[in-house]
Amino acid sequence: MNNMAEDTIKADILIKNGYLLSMNKGPKVIKHCDVAIKGNRIAMVGPTGQGQVDASRVIDAKYKVIMPGLINCHTHCGMTIFRGVANDLPLMDWLQTLWPLEDKLTQEMVYWISLLSIAEMIKSGTTTFADMYFHMDATARAVEDSGIRAVLARGLQGAGYDMQDIRIRENRELYDKWHGGAGGRIKVMAGPHAVYTCSEEYIKAVLDLVDKTGMEIHIHVSETQDEVRQCKNTTGMTPVAYLNKLGLLDRPVVAAHCVHVTREDMEILREKDVGVVYNPSSNCKLASGFAPVVDMQRLGITIGLGTDGASSNNNLDMFREIRLASLINKAVYKDATALPAGTVLSMATLGGSQVLNWPDIGTVEQGKLADIILIDIDGLHFYPLSDIKTHLVYSGGGRDVSTVIIDGQVVMDNGVLSTIDEEEVKHRVQKYFKAIV
Amino acid sequence: MNNMAEDTIKADILIKNGYLLSMNKGPKVIKHCDVAIKGNRIAMVGPTGQGQVDASRVIDAKYKVIMPGLINCHTHCGMTIFRGVANDLPLMDWLQTLWPLEDKLTQEMVYWISLLSIAEMIKSGTTTFADMYFHMDATARAVEDSGIRAVLARGLQGAGYDMQDIRIRENRELYDKWHGGAGGRIKVMAGPHAVYTCSEEYIKAVLDLVDKTGMEIHIHVSETQDEVRQCKNTTGMTPVAYLNKLGLLDRPVVAAHCVHVTREDMEILREKDVGVVYNPSSNCKLASGFAPVVDMQRLGITIGLGTDGASSNNNLDMFREIRLASLINKAVYKDATALPAGTVLSMATLGGSQVLNWPDIGTVEQGKLADIILIDIDGLHFYPLSDIKTHLVYSGGGRDVSTVIIDGQVVMDNGVLSTIDEEEVKHRVQKYFKAIV
Repeated sequence: MNNMAEDTIKADILIKNGYLLSMNKGPKVIKHCDVAIKGNRIAMVGPTGQGQVDASRVIDAKYKVIMPGLINCHTHCGMTIFRGVANDLPLMDWLQTLWPLEDKLTQEMVYWISLLSIAEMIKSGTTTFADMYFHMDATARAVEDSGIRAVLARGLQGAGYDMQDIRIRENRELYDKWHGGAGGRIKVMAGPHAVYTCSEEYIKAVLDLVDKTGMEIHIHVSETQDEVRQCKNTTGMTPVAYLNKLGLLDRPVVAAHCVHVTREDMEILREKDVGVVYNPSSNCKLASGFAPVVDMQRLGITIGLGTDGASSNNNLDMFREIRLASLINKAVYKDATALPAGTVLSMATLGGSQVLNWPDIGTVEQGKLADIILIDIDGLHFYPLSDIKTHLVYSGGGRDVSTVIIDGQVVMDNGVLSTIDEEEVKHRVQKYFKAIV
Repeated sequence: MNNMAEDTIKADILIKNGYLLSMNKGPKVIKHCDVAIKGNRIAMVGPTGQGQVDASRVIDAKYKVIMPGLINCHTHCGMTIFRGVANDLPLMDWLQTLWPLEDKLTQEMVYWISLLSIAEMIKSGTTTFADMYFHMDATARAVEDSGIRAVLARGLQGAGYDMQDIRIRENRELYDKWHGGAGGRIKVMAGPHAVYTCSEEYIKAVLDLVDKTGMEIHIHVSETQDEVRQCKNTTGMTPVAYLNKLGLLDRPVVAAHCVHVTREDMEILREKDVGVVYNPSSNCKLASGFAPVVDMQRLGITIGLGTDGASSNNNLDMFREIRLASLINKAVYKDATALPAGTVLSMATLGGSQVLNWPDIGTVEQGKLADIILIDIDGLHFYPLSDIKTHLVYSGGGRDVSTVIIDGQVVMDNGVLSTIDEEEVKHRVQKYFKAIV
């Protein structure tokens, strides 16, 4: 509730009379609220009818929640073509099944696969995603064309691999071409893959790139017990301690997974203000384990949520992560109050903006970027309309998202995408699948 | 693939050209299959066009999976009015918050709340549910009116409670009035609530009812550590051993939960052929714990899936249980091959028919009751169309169910319910909610 203008506000879009869940100052749902958008920013948030708004477009939000778009902090868009391939396998076997198939991917394929992934994300309420893969120029083009917001990194594997220098060059080129691109909707990070795929020398080469450009870093950290064991065997340290020793954690870092972290690791993550991405579906599906997310949260570590790639999930609906995160931690911690609904909603929105170091998104507040979703709460599974916030977490889902606005643009309205041709995307991806798998 | 008739079959419904997942002889998806229904039975299952079928109604199943309806083996329909009430609380606190509210429920309310629950279940692909609650005559009427199939029990609490004898009488009346009712769609069981709510004397009175009538039993067993601890303090035995000693397990039993069972308990459950109902969402949400479902499955115990009530879930979509079951057990057992997709699909269909001792449902086979669902697999999240079976488990959901047939009657077509007025149901339940909470 702010900025109650007494004069008329000129706006492009007025969202009228919804249940506001701004995620600003806690997860509280307030009935009868309006939100006005001008350009790509939120111009006004307030009780219905109180502000005088003259808008070219009015969206009725009766029986709809108005909330910030979800932020998917870790995924691999290009891998969606492997959805359903290599199921029920542990991480290392799964990677080794997929790697030869990945060699067959082309820029053209990754463009269309990225569009499929983005369409799926928008339809389930995601407005920003962080990706690490290859052929990232294609993914950047898909981001530009679809209107979504993204943090992109070229995955850098360099421990006896071919082309490790080429990869670093590609990450640099991605940065030069796309950082701040698509009208400011793209941010480019460096993507050293993990300690088990990068030598010490290679990590130093990545840090050199980072220091030359000011890029932030997106990396997999302590995803499996094997990774930790191997790192200890080689370096005598956990992955977190090792990356800290190399100075990597002194830069702004997005650390995906952090499933197998010790108390000392967590202290380092907090001290270095590393953003941790919790990926509950993927961690379960690959049998990586249960991340100590409640301990991390209590310690004050910044935590966002991610779906990971569709090949280890197998869906890009962030609401599934929200529900799973909240449910499993109650059983893991033997505490029904662990990760309550509001905390997980915060991880998926405000937490994501902090992890990705993008402070202009993550809440519905005047002056912030207009990344907003409307959620239909008139479905049977929302009745009785009691505690809307917990309904969103425990009973709702991505399929309840009706309208999605990103950077002030309506990219989905009443379930219909305006920037992506679903039929063409499905047709092309199916064709590529047949060609390479 | 059976019953390839050479002569023309007269049928009421022909489901044409779908992806058949019959769940007969394992979870295998076969393209281009037809299913014919005559009356309330499946008259033919075979490759598209091979059988000559003359049907009054043809349902096109292109891009649809044809599979048996899901069987929700444990829920409490009347509790859906408490969805969103008393979240993030452990079982005992949660029960004590709800009990005073339950006293305010009337028959009329429970009828409409049951219809809401049934509508939600049908929309997400459930064709049979097992319920234990009170005002069960109202739930039976809702079952009759909606066309769903159900196993109903009057919840029997009797350890110093008022009205314990009245409850047993009501269970008897329910049996006399409704067992085999609604055209054979209703079966009535006895519902002794749990060892912590029933005295030994009361359980014996229930067994007396069971022996007089031949009723089967639906009971909560070893849901929480507290229940087990308390039972051991009072009887020196685990709930399973104690119920076995009382002879209860010598009758056909549906045992909900079995979260905290020992190896010895599991041996008893197997030996006595007890049907166990696994309720992963509820067990997580109430912090009851992770049931050793993989151990039980390996031992050969019969297992079905359940949602439990919407107040501890908070949704009645069985596909959420399917996904959750498959995901969390991989992490619990540190084994990515634990509970693969096909195994969980089997629990939700064939397993359910075994648990509820209703052999005529649970698979799509000639001669079985026509409880069949069609699932739209043309959504973005099913692409590429690779392994349809795993897509159903890991990426699909209740919202993909398009058509539901129960006992030969189309109760939902293209997402539209034919037997329940959704708007009236929502309106009434909301009104009751405001009146009692």
